[in-house]
Amino acid sequence: MAVYTPVSADELAAFLAGYDIGAAVSFKGIAEGVENSNYLLETTAGRFILTLYEKRVAAGDLPWFLAFIGHLAARGLPVPGPVADRQGRTLQQLNGRPACLIEFAPGVSVTEATPAAAREVGAALGRLHLAAADFTQVRANALGPASWAPLAARCAHPDGGSRLGEIDPELPGLVAAGLAAAADWPAGLPVTTIHADLFPDNVLLLDGRVTALIDFYFACTDTRAYDVAVTHAAWCFSADGRVFFPDRATALMQGYAGVLALDAAEIAALPRLAAGAALRFTLTRAYDWLNTPADALVTRKDPMAFARRLAWYLAATPEMMGG
Amino acid sequence: MAVYTPVSADELAAFLAGYDIGAAVSFKGIAEGVENSNYLLETTAGRFILTLYEKRVAAGDLPWFLAFIGHLAARGLPVPGPVADRQGRTLQQLNGRPACLIEFAPGVSVTEATPAAAREVGAALGRLHLAAADFTQVRANALGPASWAPLAARCAHPDGGSRLGEIDPELPGLVAAGLAAAADWPAGLPVTTIHADLFPDNVLLLDGRVTALIDFYFACTDTRAYDVAVTHAAWCFSADGRVFFPDRATALMQGYAGVLALDAAEIAALPRLAAGAALRFTLTRAYDWLNTPADALVTRKDPMAFARRLAWYLAATPEMMGG
Repeated sequence: MAVYTPVSADELAAFLAGYDIGAAVSFKGIAEGVENSNYLLETTAGRFILTLYEKRVAAGDLPWFLAFIGHLAARGLPVPGPVADRQGRTLQQLNGRPACLIEFAPGVSVTEATPAAAREVGAALGRLHLAAADFTQVRANALGPASWAPLAARCAHPDGGSRLGEIDPELPGLVAAGLAAAADWPAGLPVTTIHADLFPDNVLLLDGRVTALIDFYFACTDTRAYDVAVTHAAWCFSADGRVFFPDRATALMQGYAGVLALDAAEIAALPRLAAGAALRFTLTRAYDWLNTPADALVTRKDPMAFARRLAWYLAATPEMMGG
Repeated sequence: MAVYTPVSADELAAFLAGYDIGAAVSFKGIAEGVENSNYLLETTAGRFILTLYEKRVAAGDLPWFLAFIGHLAARGLPVPGPVADRQGRTLQQLNGRPACLIEFAPGVSVTEATPAAAREVGAALGRLHLAAADFTQVRANALGPASWAPLAARCAHPDGGSRLGEIDPELPGLVAAGLAAAADWPAGLPVTTIHADLFPDNVLLLDGRVTALIDFYFACTDTRAYDVAVTHAAWCFSADGRVFFPDRATALMQGYAGVLALDAAEIAALPRLAAGAALRFTLTRAYDWLNTPADALVTRKDPMAFARRLAWYLAATPEMMGG
């Protein structure tokens, strides 16, 4: 949520000289994305997002990310694609950072996950999975099930005692239950390229329609229904995780099913997949919580908001998922 | 350089319902200004900046600021003015903060203070002072000469020992010399409403022309030539204050003089006024430096960059100022 790497007017002009998109008319750092420096750029030819990739994005993965969003954009998905320079290159270097120009998309980030918006995003996710079918490049999920026990172990004192209880007395037990359930992870389900982080703030809407799916930097090759489960966990609860909204869940699942039908094994596995998704966000938030100074200018996200979802999913049946 | 107060899509829609500027098409938090939350808003009718004023801006001063930028905009200055709602109000409340919609202006922040840009900004400052002549509302300069000795005193340990030497061994002596010089502050010079912070990042340019002067939240009623001196200190040195660029100074002063002629007393006072300006930024930066954790996500600005300018101005004659 910040601009880490400044770009001067002269540096921008030199960068744009490699492109066929005119000269800068306006250039403003925007507070979008968590990890990177983002600028909203208007040129005499149109509008773009300029992203400089900061340390937490692995530079070696960038060609994969850009290839995937380019693939989706080329198939007409509402995904802003990378813009190529005169030599056809999309990945650049600027001020010591990997950098890319991305198309600008109108729309406003969803902040209220209404059933109508959930239906739209379900359909958009189905179209994403359909369009991903012939994308053959593979990227492992660095935050998949195999990462969760090690991540929980990193939420510990140097002497090995867990610090999860510092966050909430109920958290250690919930994480233990989540890890136990994830040990029996559904196997053999269809795999594709997934977004893996389709939270409301990664969806732009205009007049009720999805105009953009953004922030693909957790995208990877993984279980298709796990992506549905992540989206379910992100969209179907109150922000604090205390209230489940069946109407949003039904709308999300109907939106998806209208484009792509999950098979019986996927539907049966959804509660466990969603418990895994809730565990994944519980753990990454807990790790960040324990490693972010309380007075830092970044907002810490409460791990309990997803630990409560985890508890709900551990007790859920497939029928309760809204599909 | 951050968004502190979030605004949801629903909150934005409710806010815009009071205006006659259409519905939101795009809405992005921007990293602009140091103190406030700023959003770039596009509606079906145009583009705007939505500012929510955070704690460090005194809410009681906001009507004055909005009246001044409205005054300048109405006189054709390149100053984005406030936008009124259907009831004619510009100052609003949004999410517990005072808030205002401001016109959007194209242009890119100046990052390289070339002589050509310095000439343009000098002329723009002259036009600002001309247009301010019939603005009769008064606001005292909270960071004027009377504030400097108390501010230096606040850069101290609880036991009273100065901490300026922690920043640089030369800093205590430079500040003492600056305070001594400021004790003999030029009196009786023409007073008007001044910007008081016209640094390159508060100026937008397009095709070499000033498209916007922004960030008026230090504007106040004070010595006209002091505003020229602030701008001189901001534009005519290398960023670290080690190199004075006479060509930029000449261009700045010529640009200003082409619009508005300083009188002989103002020209004679310029080195002392500029030493005061350099002292003011040295002290506010020193205070922030000593009170910002080294690991905070905000960039600390080096007080020595302006202490070096202070040393230069203390040794300068009016002839050396470029006028």
